Amino acid sequence: MTPRLSPPEAVRWAADGPGVDILDQSRLPDSEERRVLRTAEEAAAAIAALQVRGAPAIGIAAAMALAADMARHAHLPVEGFFQRLSEAAILLTAARPTAVNLAWAVRRALRATRGATSIPEVIDALRREADRILEEDRDMCRRIGQHALALFPEGPVHVMTHCNAGALATGGIGTALAPVYLAHAAGRAVRVFVPETRPLLQGSRLTAWELERAGVDVTLLPDSAAAVVMRERRVELVIVGADRIAANGDVANKVGTYGLAVLAAHHGLPFYVAAPTSTVDLATPDGRSIPIESRSADEVRRGFGRRTAPEDVEVFAPAFDVTPAALVHAIVTEHGVIRPPFDTGLAALRPPRSE
Amino acid sequence: MTPRLSPPEAVRWAADGPGVDILDQSRLPDSEERRVLRTAEEAAAAIAALQVRGAPAIGIAAAMALAADMARHAHLPVEGFFQRLSEAAILLTAARPTAVNLAWAVRRALRATRGATSIPEVIDALRREADRILEEDRDMCRRIGQHALALFPEGPVHVMTHCNAGALATGGIGTALAPVYLAHAAGRAVRVFVPETRPLLQGSRLTAWELERAGVDVTLLPDSAAAVVMRERRVELVIVGADRIAANGDVANKVGTYGLAVLAAHHGLPFYVAAPTSTVDLATPDGRSIPIESRSADEVRRGFGRRTAPEDVEVFAPAFDVTPAALVHAIVTEHGVIRPPFDTGLAALRPPRSE
Repeated sequence: MTPRLSPPEAVRWAADGPGVDILDQSRLPDSEERRVLRTAEEAAAAIAALQVRGAPAIGIAAAMALAADMARHAHLPVEGFFQRLSEAAILLTAARPTAVNLAWAVRRALRATRGATSIPEVIDALRREADRILEEDRDMCRRIGQHALALFPEGPVHVMTHCNAGALATGGIGTALAPVYLAHAAGRAVRVFVPETRPLLQGSRLTAWELERAGVDVTLLPDSAAAVVMRERRVELVIVGADRIAANGDVANKVGTYGLAVLAAHHGLPFYVAAPTSTVDLATPDGRSIPIESRSADEVRRGFGRRTAPEDVEVFAPAFDVTPAALVHAIVTEHGVIRPPFDTGLAALRPPRSE
Repeated sequence: MTPRLSPPEAVRWAADGPGVDILDQSRLPDSEERRVLRTAEEAAAAIAALQVRGAPAIGIAAAMALAADMARHAHLPVEGFFQRLSEAAILLTAARPTAVNLAWAVRRALRATRGATSIPEVIDALRREADRILEEDRDMCRRIGQHALALFPEGPVHVMTHCNAGALATGGIGTALAPVYLAHAAGRAVRVFVPETRPLLQGSRLTAWELERAGVDVTLLPDSAAAVVMRERRVELVIVGADRIAANGDVANKVGTYGLAVLAAHHGLPFYVAAPTSTVDLATPDGRSIPIESRSADEVRRGFGRRTAPEDVEVFAPAFDVTPAALVHAIVTEHGVIRPPFDTGLAALRPPRSE
């Protein structure tokens, strides 16, 4: 009997009227609480607070929130309605600066309203486009999983990931974790080594949680033990997600990714990036032009409600880092595996956002 | 005016009779509490709980605890006294497996009792030897600092360290941090980039604390941001302490050290190890023979009193890792700077423990 694939639903429509029902990831693994976001403000705040996170998931949440918010503003006069539409779109787009999917999803939703000739038609177009983004995302996850699985070696497989690029980060079975779920569902032995991912511990709180929930073997480690895991050959490969991929193949992802890529190269292990084409930003030539969000110093100084550093100590806490294309062995999208040099392969994708 | 060097005293004699007065490092940085250890059992427990830690400091504490414990057993008949001496020595030596200084200090204290012809003479010899170990350690720190300072580049200097190899880890101004304190005391601009050092956060709780207390500029970072700091050339070198150095120059130190060494090599930055000769173990041919302590999984699963991972998730949490000699640019001891290949230079040290 092969295990069923039933990932947690990070984002879905609210059952009781316009709203986005999210699994509040800031509460995991302590409690599994859902909450409903009814306005663009609530959604932007939830995205900024990482209650919903992961590049694909925040794109989906933003598109759904835009539809829900506008449904609640159906009563406005036409001018007010469209003012609110711009305002809500800008709010959502600005919630987090690094992931390109936010802007992509919002722009796509707005484009879908072009033919609409009335407020109800606009609202309907927004809702249908958000649905489409969610459905495409589910399909995208599965395709990424199939393509990435082809990169896994035969026999029992041990992979290292970073942060959370799983079901919680998407509408489906994840990006970097998608091949893991497919391998597990096919009855193959697979174990995932998960760095805890300080400061916000997405590895221990989210990735370990969702993999255990699905019955996949997990080994959690402090970020600083990743080098030993590689040196002792406990893993055969590293696979991570991405928040933005530049035209040359440079990859912005959770801080720590770049270090893992250097370590993988040193130990002769392949380093793969799995992400939908909506993460590819052809307008960004290389990693140097990717804006990197800084997180609050207190996430490091008092990570868990308890002070663990001097009160006023200076902190360096970028949320993301950039892994140069030269350290990436392959980028896997829903369209297949791209090998270096990446520029041609990425350009050929014609990511939806540059249509 | 140059700043005064007044490091915190990690270990000193109790003021009120036989005992070891330690700064309880498990309480930092929240509160600065001292406690007195009166027996070998208390000292071994304090060492195992990392209330006193750092290879040199636990050697000092063990020698002092042995003297204090035996002073409290002065009333025993001769046979009972020497049974207790063996028992206490074994207890203290076994408190932590990786650092070689524990065994070295205890053995040295026992050797010092050889000429003693009565219980009071044994007690006196133990006390004087512990005093000597403490004094030598202070002197050793200063010498290491002077030799290591010669490796620093001209002008303002930015160094990365790991864990705590500072005053808190020794009887003096530290090992890896000794050149930093000397540079600061000489009025030079110096900034230390401190990885927080999960799971027990010795970087944020201890190193950031003692450097700030001394007025040295500090930047704290999540362990996973070290690679970005190096890539952005925010530091010119990496300098760490050691828990054990094998005859070939392989270095056991806090987990994460090996990863930093790989990253430093990738970025062309020098990687230095500063440690007293008592850390050199010529009986250990290379890093493969160094026993590596595993810490409790709960230090990762519930690091700060709050659960941050699934309850029963498997954890990989070695306390130390081994950096191969090939990644080390120099080993600095109180006798000077040793360059690779290290075997000859280390053998020439004739570390006290192999006398």
